[in-house]
Amino acid sequence: MSKPTPLSGFPEFLPSQRIVEQEVIDRLRGVFELHGFAGIETRAAEPMSELLRKGEIDKEVYVVRRLHAEPGSAADDVSADTLGLHYDLTVPFARYVLENSGKLDFPFRRYQIQKAWRGERPQEGRFREFTQADIDIVGAGELPFHHDVEVATVMVTALSRLQELGVPPMRLQVNNRKLLEGFYLGLGAVDPHAVMRVVDKLDKVSAPVVSTMLQSDAGLDAGQAATCLELAAISTADAGFVAQVRALGVEHDLLDTGLTELAAVMTALAHLDAPHVSVTADLRIARGLDYYTGTVFETQMTGFEHLGSICSGGRYDALADDGRNVYPGVGISLGVSRILVPLLSRGLLAATRSVPSAVLVAVVSDDTRAVSETIARSLRSRGIATEVAPAASRYGKQIRFAQRRSIPFVWFPPSGTGTAAAQSDGRAPDDSPPHQVRDIRSGDQVTADPDSWSPPAADLRPAVTTHP
Amino acid sequence: MSKPTPLSGFPEFLPSQRIVEQEVIDRLRGVFELHGFAGIETRAAEPMSELLRKGEIDKEVYVVRRLHAEPGSAADDVSADTLGLHYDLTVPFARYVLENSGKLDFPFRRYQIQKAWRGERPQEGRFREFTQADIDIVGAGELPFHHDVEVATVMVTALSRLQELGVPPMRLQVNNRKLLEGFYLGLGAVDPHAVMRVVDKLDKVSAPVVSTMLQSDAGLDAGQAATCLELAAISTADAGFVAQVRALGVEHDLLDTGLTELAAVMTALAHLDAPHVSVTADLRIARGLDYYTGTVFETQMTGFEHLGSICSGGRYDALADDGRNVYPGVGISLGVSRILVPLLSRGLLAATRSVPSAVLVAVVSDDTRAVSETIARSLRSRGIATEVAPAASRYGKQIRFAQRRSIPFVWFPPSGTGTAAAQSDGRAPDDSPPHQVRDIRSGDQVTADPDSWSPPAADLRPAVTTHP
Repeated sequence: MSKPTPLSGFPEFLPSQRIVEQEVIDRLRGVFELHGFAGIETRAAEPMSELLRKGEIDKEVYVVRRLHAEPGSAADDVSADTLGLHYDLTVPFARYVLENSGKLDFPFRRYQIQKAWRGERPQEGRFREFTQADIDIVGAGELPFHHDVEVATVMVTALSRLQELGVPPMRLQVNNRKLLEGFYLGLGAVDPHAVMRVVDKLDKVSAPVVSTMLQSDAGLDAGQAATCLELAAISTADAGFVAQVRALGVEHDLLDTGLTELAAVMTALAHLDAPHVSVTADLRIARGLDYYTGTVFETQMTGFEHLGSICSGGRYDALADDGRNVYPGVGISLGVSRILVPLLSRGLLAATRSVPSAVLVAVVSDDTRAVSETIARSLRSRGIATEVAPAASRYGKQIRFAQRRSIPFVWFPPSGTGTAAAQSDGRAPDDSPPHQVRDIRSGDQVTADPDSWSPPAADLRPAVTTHP
Repeated sequence: MSKPTPLSGFPEFLPSQRIVEQEVIDRLRGVFELHGFAGIETRAAEPMSELLRKGEIDKEVYVVRRLHAEPGSAADDVSADTLGLHYDLTVPFARYVLENSGKLDFPFRRYQIQKAWRGERPQEGRFREFTQADIDIVGAGELPFHHDVEVATVMVTALSRLQELGVPPMRLQVNNRKLLEGFYLGLGAVDPHAVMRVVDKLDKVSAPVVSTMLQSDAGLDAGQAATCLELAAISTADAGFVAQVRALGVEHDLLDTGLTELAAVMTALAHLDAPHVSVTADLRIARGLDYYTGTVFETQMTGFEHLGSICSGGRYDALADDGRNVYPGVGISLGVSRILVPLLSRGLLAATRSVPSAVLVAVVSDDTRAVSETIARSLRSRGIATEVAPAASRYGKQIRFAQRRSIPFVWFPPSGTGTAAAQSDGRAPDDSPPHQVRDIRSGDQVTADPDSWSPPAADLRPAVTTHP
């Protein structure tokens, strides 16, 4: 078998990189659970009928089929009960809520950290297989607005914990679709969603072109279009946007609601202690997807704006609907792979070692491996990850074994090890020389007792470091 | 949209069940890391050419294809670069080792806890999507035998940690293919693998039938067949099997090696403190798969023998081969879903609550939600998972909200909350009545300070309980 090559769009990590990803996932999970979010996982496959409901993304779905299950059927002959891999965690969550509605307590807070798959063309930050971390709160029938504030607070707290690891600063942009829709209606637009769709193009085309399109595609006059662009230009780091919107002179009840809601989110986030997550009310953000109905979020990672939004979401009045109940929700999805693959592949984040082990116990001779195993067992019993050297080679070679993995400490059994007494019970005899442990970074070597010695807390587990 | 129904073979857990699964996975991971195993994840999809190398299981593979990627092509037209979902974690690990051989340090210890997929007919303990936890040690060129002892030790330690949660006792059966092959050769068999394949059927057919098959299919005479059955009947809880095998009078160098290796595994496991994992040297176990070459493992869960082996593995002299190097390995795979789905669906294991939250902070009035949020923030800052009641309904209703989720504590803000002073800074005024916290199981209610109160350690996180 020849050496395999990576599959484009299916990133995999080396062990030291996986340590970083695992630490990121552990921290996210920690924050989510601290706020009462329950973790769930959903199956990887959903019926195509579920996956294609949103319509737009059908080409990106991976169809899953048993080999030889239906010989001769065409690959593009997809019936409703054909399965596909989920392309996000929202569609399966909506299905899970409906399927288990009688067994869940609402409002239901859940987090979900899983892989998803999209058959799109791979590019940096866009993968065919990727990990997302989603939080959502869903209600049965109703869901008070304060949960919008809650999901924003929880995700900003989580992002802030990632920045402690060295993930670049984030800029969270918040807006509110009620604000936009109310403003456009107050301005006299007959199709506020058409206006929203055009304004959403400001990322890609210039303001004059958007102005022209607002007149040609959304039925506005030149003055209305200019006012829409003035609204889109408003961006404040606090609730100051309210006065700026009011100054545009547009009036509508829905606009009032949107302004109140967005101000509430901004005020709550301003009180958080998250210095490296800057939050702005940015009235240009609309999120193209039609199911958002209130608060919307997007997030840029500083220096990596080309990745697009790495953390997005919002309020949807109908996450799911089973005919008896409507389930409104609010949620945010963090692109774990979208953040980590670029940072890890550039070496901007790294782990201090490639194995969990804090200690390598050297082996004196092949006959006394049991002595080294006993020492390792003692260290492990106190939570110290330990491995035993694979061979009783000379100590220089055993130390290099540890160095290659950046294991910080090498333990040397008493040199008396090898006597009959040591072999019989896995312990060195009482009159033998003491155990020694060496910090292979400094070369410092000290006498130590395997039943009480511990490494410094910072060395107990691999840490994440930045290499800017 | 109507209520969706579960997909057969794709088990999903309710939030309280997922808490149990997550605890199981955390414990496994903890044991593996303590022994120096590095965690990796591999992509879900592999080229079909990789997946079909083992030959036998081609019908069980799920083929993955982009929707509309190749219109008109037949579903069973599978080329070498078509992708399929992995059906175990060994094939992707072998590929990962070859792909990254220049970047890994050997011997390489890895654990991998991931889902796998098989398109087989669902039945209890057999799923189309399931989670496995694998550990393997792989060497470049060579891998000393003591690593066989190591993986057995680590997995028995892990199983023992699961039994602390209430998972039923396990019976690990160990054998050695060198012992079998050497014995059959010493006995005069010309095709020892044919003998092994027939003896392996003892699970399903009676000894007399096996004896007949050994004569018809494996070329033995009646006396040789009888001796093979005597060997297969040997089962000891220690190294006592050695004398019993010797008593059969067969001689062969490979038999000697196998006896020595199996005795070493048994002796090491006897020294472990794992009272609920019984280990037997069981000379009937052969593991059908041809790639095992030495130690082999199987595990039964007491009372659930109908599930088959829940934890299997062994030594393979060629996990992978890239033409320059052969990579021998030894590993064991634990069927997490195979264990947990039956236990959870029967209610034999359960979590003490359905949410991570230890505390629900009640809300006095809609105007003073900020007071409750401030209390929650203080509790969370000390690692206490806390949620705030969704609505300022009367206290009886808020307590029932906690009861439905089995959240043990409800926090009542000072009744003075609601004054202007309380609203302005999120704090109750100094002269207000104190905070109260109630254990809703006992009804005990005490005065408490949100900056110092903690729940008993046992209530901090959801626990796993047994309901036999």
